[in-house]
Amino acid sequence: MDTSTLGSWKKTFDKELFEYVLPFWETHSPDWEHGGYMNALSRDGSTYDGSKYIWLQARQVWMFSTLWLKYEQRDTWKDIAGLGARFLRDYAIREDDRAYFSLNQTGEPTWMQRKIFSECFIVMAFAQYSRVTGEPEWMLKAKHLFQRITEWAEDLQKIGRPAYSGSKIANSLAVPMILLNVIEELAGEEWQEYHDVIQSLIERMLGHIKQDEKWILENTGVDGEFIDSIEGRLLNPGHSIEAGWFLQHWAQRLDRKDLSRIAIDMVKWSLEYGWDDQYGGIFYFLDAKGHNPTQLEWDMKLWWPHCEAMYATLLNYSITGNLQDWDDFERIANYTFSHFPDHEYGEWYGYLNRRGEVTHTFKGGPYKGCFHVPRALWLCRSLLEELIKRQHSV
Amino acid sequence: MDTSTLGSWKKTFDKELFEYVLPFWETHSPDWEHGGYMNALSRDGSTYDGSKYIWLQARQVWMFSTLWLKYEQRDTWKDIAGLGARFLRDYAIREDDRAYFSLNQTGEPTWMQRKIFSECFIVMAFAQYSRVTGEPEWMLKAKHLFQRITEWAEDLQKIGRPAYSGSKIANSLAVPMILLNVIEELAGEEWQEYHDVIQSLIERMLGHIKQDEKWILENTGVDGEFIDSIEGRLLNPGHSIEAGWFLQHWAQRLDRKDLSRIAIDMVKWSLEYGWDDQYGGIFYFLDAKGHNPTQLEWDMKLWWPHCEAMYATLLNYSITGNLQDWDDFERIANYTFSHFPDHEYGEWYGYLNRRGEVTHTFKGGPYKGCFHVPRALWLCRSLLEELIKRQHSV
Repeated sequence: MDTSTLGSWKKTFDKELFEYVLPFWETHSPDWEHGGYMNALSRDGSTYDGSKYIWLQARQVWMFSTLWLKYEQRDTWKDIAGLGARFLRDYAIREDDRAYFSLNQTGEPTWMQRKIFSECFIVMAFAQYSRVTGEPEWMLKAKHLFQRITEWAEDLQKIGRPAYSGSKIANSLAVPMILLNVIEELAGEEWQEYHDVIQSLIERMLGHIKQDEKWILENTGVDGEFIDSIEGRLLNPGHSIEAGWFLQHWAQRLDRKDLSRIAIDMVKWSLEYGWDDQYGGIFYFLDAKGHNPTQLEWDMKLWWPHCEAMYATLLNYSITGNLQDWDDFERIANYTFSHFPDHEYGEWYGYLNRRGEVTHTFKGGPYKGCFHVPRALWLCRSLLEELIKRQHSV
Repeated sequence: MDTSTLGSWKKTFDKELFEYVLPFWETHSPDWEHGGYMNALSRDGSTYDGSKYIWLQARQVWMFSTLWLKYEQRDTWKDIAGLGARFLRDYAIREDDRAYFSLNQTGEPTWMQRKIFSECFIVMAFAQYSRVTGEPEWMLKAKHLFQRITEWAEDLQKIGRPAYSGSKIANSLAVPMILLNVIEELAGEEWQEYHDVIQSLIERMLGHIKQDEKWILENTGVDGEFIDSIEGRLLNPGHSIEAGWFLQHWAQRLDRKDLSRIAIDMVKWSLEYGWDDQYGGIFYFLDAKGHNPTQLEWDMKLWWPHCEAMYATLLNYSITGNLQDWDDFERIANYTFSHFPDHEYGEWYGYLNRRGEVTHTFKGGPYKGCFHVPRALWLCRSLLEELIKRQHSV
């Protein structure tokens, strides 16, 4: 692709990130009084609920820390990251190292999941914030919590998730996927010390990929086998696209061309079955055998699969140089930029119906915070920058 | 309303129930090999998953038992009811009286909720089936289980549902509502022995009704107070319409005109805020203060709120004789009959988008079984029959 096209896209991403998205969170989310961030933010940034969701608190710490580390050492970004990190440290984690799913505005618990994701995002937050402040205690906390997570991930019964004799589903794509991303963020350049865990997680992830059928299955049986049930047939294209670029990052680090090829295919296949030919955009859920998904929201178009797909297709292009991959990137990016941004108030809408009409006007909710939008914008503008540099050095 | 209009509607309901809906379940759902019913049924009745959901198993036992008792003593209906009752007895209930949420096809457990609804529906099933067979052990089981449910309902921590210090939500409309319906089905004519429990449950239900604002709140604080949060502002019009007719049945039995008035209002207010003026149909979720609901499916049109609303508005009309109530009934019934039935394969679609287009083609799924459609059709045709009789006796 020519430099001018790359440059034009980079400008689009930069403008969106720095002029429309970050200012929204900088202005409306910090709770300077009680700590942490307000998460339930209406279209205009006003608060409609005091709940603080740990996934979102931790991801926002990670996001502002990352921008401070990799883009510019702005004091406000460091302050915002610290506001969330201290809130998490003070309120989110129980004596037994389990982290809550949500707290009220002043930090009292309101819900706990029998899952490991709150803890995973806290590891990412503390590790990155440790690099911002240079204070080692954050990294120590992150490493301790990661150790605990790996224990729990072996058997979720340890955190109270019951196992039932009648269920054939044993493996969830979400677990190896998120752990691979957590290690990427936790270990940084020192990933070699996690070498064995990484190999084992990659194997677990590969167990969800059915090459013959071109399926990336969310849930499989105990030996990775396909289970012909609602859960076993579940496809979540946004999720497997995200898993694809997580795997690609490891393929690059490990210099494994075989994995890189698989990671590219994960993104392509997910887009093949995930793209809505009728109205455009990526479906939320599908059934591998074409049954009607049982999730009520299956045909909605959510912001995060589109964010993940923009970066994943651009990453594919950066490796293959194929015009087809560039076209995929532009197709996703054009849909995304023409449907999700709200330039009047900033940030993006999160939820569209199948036709692409906004169904939920809020910018922050229980599962939407300062994460997928700025992360994707950041990753894309940085990769575009690298692609432009590459051309200049040719 | 004139006899010919009433008769015409009764004919519509009878035809739908006996020609299109019941045959679908009679043909496709019984699992004569393993017991119980197949629940995951595609548009044409074919099975797409082997799971057996206890809510749906129990409700279907209740439905076929009720039809056998009140309409016609068909052997197939008794056989189908027995198939489910025995499956529930043999597989659904643990040693400690807790019932699972779902089993696999052969009866092994696959999920347990930290809620009381599986048990509630089993009580209804066993009580009604006891009347079909005349076998007292079913009623004994029902009464024992109901006793246990009332213990758990006092404090859901007894069944492992944790309480968190930061949450202000203490009361859920679902609990008094379902228990009032369970007692109606369990006690039959002998409801006087539950007199005190009934009074207490009615009080608890009334705590969710905010007369000044015309809100029926799903969740309230410990003293019934309004909580200004996502959960506290939640409105579920289909649910509060159903609660309205549950209360109306008790108002009639207790001969309480004050309660009858409130029950009528519950239905009217729910329809006022629940009806979609733009596309017709009843929204699934709303926010009392007009914020955008956070549920992704908030604007969908589901079969069951429309089923409940048809009967509730007809019941209102049967009490008030007001043309406005009749018009409400016809508005709901016209929308319902023109959107949900599938006369090609039988039964109704369950899920439409806001525009009223079918988004999910299956007839049976994890939350949709042989219950709301046939129950509403049965209740409406029976009430229409009574209204016609009343006119003849004038």
